[in-house]
Amino acid sequence: MTDLNKIGEVGLIERIRQATSAPSHPETIRGIGDDAAVFDWGDQYGLLVTDMLVEGIHFDLSYVPLKHLGYKAITFGVSDIAAMNGLPIQVTVGVALSSRFPVEAIDELYEGIRAACTAYDVDLVGGDTTASRSGLVISVSVLGKVSKELITYRNTAQPNDVVCVTGDLGAAYLGLQLLEREKQVFLADPNMQPSLPEERSYLLQRQLRPDARTDIVHELRDLGIRPTAMIDISDGLASELLHLCHQSGTGAIIFDENIPIDDQAHLAADEFKISPITAALNGGEDYELLFTVRPQEFEKLANHSRITAIGYLTADPSQIVLATKAGQQTPIRAQGWGQL
Amino acid sequence: MTDLNKIGEVGLIERIRQATSAPSHPETIRGIGDDAAVFDWGDQYGLLVTDMLVEGIHFDLSYVPLKHLGYKAITFGVSDIAAMNGLPIQVTVGVALSSRFPVEAIDELYEGIRAACTAYDVDLVGGDTTASRSGLVISVSVLGKVSKELITYRNTAQPNDVVCVTGDLGAAYLGLQLLEREKQVFLADPNMQPSLPEERSYLLQRQLRPDARTDIVHELRDLGIRPTAMIDISDGLASELLHLCHQSGTGAIIFDENIPIDDQAHLAADEFKISPITAALNGGEDYELLFTVRPQEFEKLANHSRITAIGYLTADPSQIVLATKAGQQTPIRAQGWGQL
Repeated sequence: MTDLNKIGEVGLIERIRQATSAPSHPETIRGIGDDAAVFDWGDQYGLLVTDMLVEGIHFDLSYVPLKHLGYKAITFGVSDIAAMNGLPIQVTVGVALSSRFPVEAIDELYEGIRAACTAYDVDLVGGDTTASRSGLVISVSVLGKVSKELITYRNTAQPNDVVCVTGDLGAAYLGLQLLEREKQVFLADPNMQPSLPEERSYLLQRQLRPDARTDIVHELRDLGIRPTAMIDISDGLASELLHLCHQSGTGAIIFDENIPIDDQAHLAADEFKISPITAALNGGEDYELLFTVRPQEFEKLANHSRITAIGYLTADPSQIVLATKAGQQTPIRAQGWGQL
Repeated sequence: MTDLNKIGEVGLIERIRQATSAPSHPETIRGIGDDAAVFDWGDQYGLLVTDMLVEGIHFDLSYVPLKHLGYKAITFGVSDIAAMNGLPIQVTVGVALSSRFPVEAIDELYEGIRAACTAYDVDLVGGDTTASRSGLVISVSVLGKVSKELITYRNTAQPNDVVCVTGDLGAAYLGLQLLEREKQVFLADPNMQPSLPEERSYLLQRQLRPDARTDIVHELRDLGIRPTAMIDISDGLASELLHLCHQSGTGAIIFDENIPIDDQAHLAADEFKISPITAALNGGEDYELLFTVRPQEFEKLANHSRITAIGYLTADPSQIVLATKAGQQTPIRAQGWGQL
């Protein structure tokens, strides 16, 4: 018997992918191995993705409001559609929950789901609601659409492409540290009031109610830019950069001083004695996009306030490194699958 | 605070549906309220459905082999696509599981998933695999397709239509009783060998490894028949007949002696002192289809070995009754949502 922890999430997905036979339908353009599956929808491509959020793994209801959780669940799926350069159309939501939840709790969860559907302009079209013996599990499937000329995979980047990220990184992870700390304080003394100062509100928002970057998908279209490759980095910048490079057969040099980190994240990292770069590389839950563009395309993005160039791709697939200002280079590694 | 048990699954879905705003995308043809959501796929309709299977609610791993469970999970979703008169194309599978499962257990689960994908001719295109603090939860989303002329909803049946069911009913429920009994025997004395005789093998197959009726979808096409309405009856004949009638605004008379029940189910019902009709009406987990056809169409189906006429629809929506040979009529009621 082989321990799941030994092969890890990536190993498991690879094992499933290898054992899966080739698609039999002409409609199936891509199966396992990208942010979403792709099917031929006549003059466009359809996109399909399923994500799961599990209580005790992805969220802790002692500090996550159900309304935010509903919003985040939709963000989770929509972000994968955005990573294919697509936009969402329909969403189905499966909810397994125990009878400890009153009807009003489900109302709250769905309030957040609906708020996200409005924000991302996606239709809530169905799902499944079922009992559970223990925790809350949410499954979100999103149907999206993208024109055949604009679809963007993970494995099509080329050496010399500029590596870009949207927004800023590490804040969601530091928001989680803040919430976990307050939970411990509260557990030790339930009379203590939680200390979640206004100066940290951005971190909490990034952790509790993140937004998917459909805005960037619209803007890239407006600017006439099609990325050469794109991937959602909610699992962490490091692991997703490795996916993009491995699948494209390239290396990468990332400049640590270029990685966008918010001031609140810097302050909190200091407070928690965590390197802000580590939080940005491995923290995860930043629903941002990592994408690559041809160098000659990049100037169109150079002054974009929510897009930052953090490095470039190289021809040597064995060199995926983080470079410091002083010129030191260290290999970028993905964190293991610590959860399972 | 309102107890979930009070409003039940149907009440909850209705509550979610009512609070959900009208679809904003022209592609969305139908949302919540049928077996699958419907979207406009150019010259055809696309279908999307999500189902969840939860350990301790939908299955008990002390007697359900993981391979069969994988197969059944796909059957669950494909059956909903068949109920729209459609055929499946792609499937995504989300799996949440704890580290007590070795890698080989996941291989077994996926072996069943792949066997079902081959049986139903559907491409496994992705999904999500995640940790879980407790039990195993499987979420299946299926993308299907149906021509615009053949799509079949729940709410389009008319008075005088003949009510048909596929296959036979009640066997899956009696298979479950058999497995539950052997589990109790084993728990009381682990040295006892389970007694699951060959003469009950059909019941076990119906419970453990049921098939969705894509065969019937093909046959109806070959016969040139489009049902006036159709619904999947894995939640039980009674509740689904009520859905079909309520949504179509009709009544129904069902003749108890016409309900197809296998010989093994009769024998087991006798053994367990359960009415075979009750097992057929409320047992559930028979992945069969309930559909209605115009009376003049029915003769094309009259000699079909896997389709049985069990009654007809009436104009009075308040009369949905079971009629005995002796002429007695009793209202058909759905069982409550006992699980949550």
